[in-house]
Amino acid sequence: MPTLSVFTDVPMAQKLEGSLLKTYKQDDNPNKMFLAYKVCMTSEGKPWVSSVVRKTRMQIAQDPSLNYEYTPVMGMKSFVQASLNLLFGKNSQVIVENRAGGVQTVGDSGAFQLGAQFLKTWCQNSQIVYIVSSQKEPHGLIFQDMGFTVYEYTFWDSAHLCLDANTLLNVLEDAPHGCIFVIGSIGNCQLTPSQWTQLMTLMKSKEIFPFFDIPHQGLSTGDLEEDASFLHYFVSQGFEFFCSQSLSKNFGIYDEGVGTLVVVALNNQLLLRVLSQLMNFARALWLNPPTTGVRIITSILCNPAMQGEWRQSLEGVVENIMMTKEKVKEKLRLLGTPGSWDHITEQKGSHSYLGLNSQQVEYLISEKHIYIPKNGRINFTCINSYNIDYITSSINEAVCFTKDSEK
Amino acid sequence: MPTLSVFTDVPMAQKLEGSLLKTYKQDDNPNKMFLAYKVCMTSEGKPWVSSVVRKTRMQIAQDPSLNYEYTPVMGMKSFVQASLNLLFGKNSQVIVENRAGGVQTVGDSGAFQLGAQFLKTWCQNSQIVYIVSSQKEPHGLIFQDMGFTVYEYTFWDSAHLCLDANTLLNVLEDAPHGCIFVIGSIGNCQLTPSQWTQLMTLMKSKEIFPFFDIPHQGLSTGDLEEDASFLHYFVSQGFEFFCSQSLSKNFGIYDEGVGTLVVVALNNQLLLRVLSQLMNFARALWLNPPTTGVRIITSILCNPAMQGEWRQSLEGVVENIMMTKEKVKEKLRLLGTPGSWDHITEQKGSHSYLGLNSQQVEYLISEKHIYIPKNGRINFTCINSYNIDYITSSINEAVCFTKDSEK
Repeated sequence: MPTLSVFTDVPMAQKLEGSLLKTYKQDDNPNKMFLAYKVCMTSEGKPWVSSVVRKTRMQIAQDPSLNYEYTPVMGMKSFVQASLNLLFGKNSQVIVENRAGGVQTVGDSGAFQLGAQFLKTWCQNSQIVYIVSSQKEPHGLIFQDMGFTVYEYTFWDSAHLCLDANTLLNVLEDAPHGCIFVIGSIGNCQLTPSQWTQLMTLMKSKEIFPFFDIPHQGLSTGDLEEDASFLHYFVSQGFEFFCSQSLSKNFGIYDEGVGTLVVVALNNQLLLRVLSQLMNFARALWLNPPTTGVRIITSILCNPAMQGEWRQSLEGVVENIMMTKEKVKEKLRLLGTPGSWDHITEQKGSHSYLGLNSQQVEYLISEKHIYIPKNGRINFTCINSYNIDYITSSINEAVCFTKDSEK
Repeated sequence: MPTLSVFTDVPMAQKLEGSLLKTYKQDDNPNKMFLAYKVCMTSEGKPWVSSVVRKTRMQIAQDPSLNYEYTPVMGMKSFVQASLNLLFGKNSQVIVENRAGGVQTVGDSGAFQLGAQFLKTWCQNSQIVYIVSSQKEPHGLIFQDMGFTVYEYTFWDSAHLCLDANTLLNVLEDAPHGCIFVIGSIGNCQLTPSQWTQLMTLMKSKEIFPFFDIPHQGLSTGDLEEDASFLHYFVSQGFEFFCSQSLSKNFGIYDEGVGTLVVVALNNQLLLRVLSQLMNFARALWLNPPTTGVRIITSILCNPAMQGEWRQSLEGVVENIMMTKEKVKEKLRLLGTPGSWDHITEQKGSHSYLGLNSQQVEYLISEKHIYIPKNGRINFTCINSYNIDYITSSINEAVCFTKDSEK
């Protein structure tokens, strides 16, 4: 007796991302390389893990006193407090005034999911979202799936090869009243004081709601405080905001999905009301967030010696990134590659624009089997002593070839 | 300059659950006890952890070869396969025919969230959900929040003090065509072959979609295969279904939220289409599910000696539960408590009905500070040698008191 399937009308879902990685994996060429991994890689091409994490993991496994009961819906309290302190500083205005709080989430996707659900329900005037292009997948899609209208923006000026605050200000100028603005590493833009004033005035007058994204505090400049310092501008101007704070990448525990949705409100009473609603959403999403990652992180953050070791490990990663960038620039100079490559070292953090056009990117992929995203923004920690010569000579080839073909 | 808050209209959320636990915690009486914990407790009143878990946790922490990169959206492949094998048996029809699959989820709440999102989108004729009362919170609320109409049912017959298949059949008789039926431990109902036939016929003719809930396979009878054996009836009758399979409780790693949303479809092609859609939902929910729990479980399931040790630990828990139930019954007999208490030992698993009415429950809470849910369904692993005498004499008092007051 043949039965009709309940699932007859369900189509195969469109694959949303990872096509570059998939093409890379299917490539048989022995020289192939992938320069778009999300996480920091070691010089041996392995995902970076802070050395202090390994020790802490062992200590936790050996501790017979630990209780493996369900965690509260809001997450481990000591963890949330430690991550708020990390973000704002223990003595910051919002912490002292008791108007910053947070919910532990399953990674930063979880934080965006939770925040978007709240905004969908409680801020129905704000159903338009602006998000930086590189975060369209996956975070922009979360808003889109929920029915928000999502616009992408960028502050990379490809003509002048720099991160440009004016580009951002222009986007804000055009954005509608009351929209949601997802803001990533705005600190890298190096806004002047007058640009900051302009930005604040624009956002205030348009009642734009900031949703910050801090995916790897400490891995931009090597200094935890500096990486989050732009938040103080917003706090001091009396903004309310959400912030997705991920602590997976800067500890190197990618597989535990450790995130926090941080809330800053005008006062404690408003904060508690927002948190109570977020708790109900979190209960339906995952009820009890997982613990191993937050246990490791809380142990490290609450122990000054271990925190010091962690901070040093972050500095080490950032020093290596800067060294790699300098080497790439120098090798391109020695090869006589046309153009200035200063923009490589002027950008901060692991992920930076190479400053190549789409034709040059295409050349690198198809001719040299070097897989980089269309916008030319690569992960510099994927470059190491084993592959730097191949990569720089390939970039040189790509630039010369496309210059020649222009003539 | 006072600013208007974005959150002005956000009210404090209603607390949804945990009020019993909260009242218990606020009680100052030194004799107070809580008999409604979700997890199995040891005789020392601590959450139970399978002994093999501790060793495995240590081995994993010590393994330098492990990669802590992001897990795939669908979860760890080897884990999903191992949990499917556990549920159906390696050589079962659905596994051999490649039409059972799964997505790793964050606990069973995550599995219900994922499944409900899918059904909301792709099975729009099925927007009515029946769920067993004890699962209304939290799983029923997930459906309700998404806009489903949710009805509660029970198969506990409080008049005859037994789990009654006819109650369930009556509910199915009344349920509308094409609804979703969340089915928990139906195995405990001990349906006769003719009742099974009746159940299947009803569900088939009404095109009712089963959404099974296996929260702790092995902790009902102590036998993993027996606890999931009722699934074979549905498989053999050609049903398609979802199943939330949680592996947190039966390993004792409550804080890692290890779940799977299992899908059974008529054929592999349909299965792949459903899984592809589920992957998109999972990407927006948490992108990468956490790993520690699944690593521990996969290590144990894939190692015959360790799996054997785990199975033995489950048998031990169930033996203790049965012993406790026998003791409670015997003590009530010795106290001369009115009524038969056979229903206590006739029920399987940690959570069973005491068979008390609401007045008796109220008496236990207010007079004896013994906190049990209104329906009188308690966790028998909360009873141990230290508290059994107080509990049984209190039950005796409650029964005698309410009997007397009836006169």
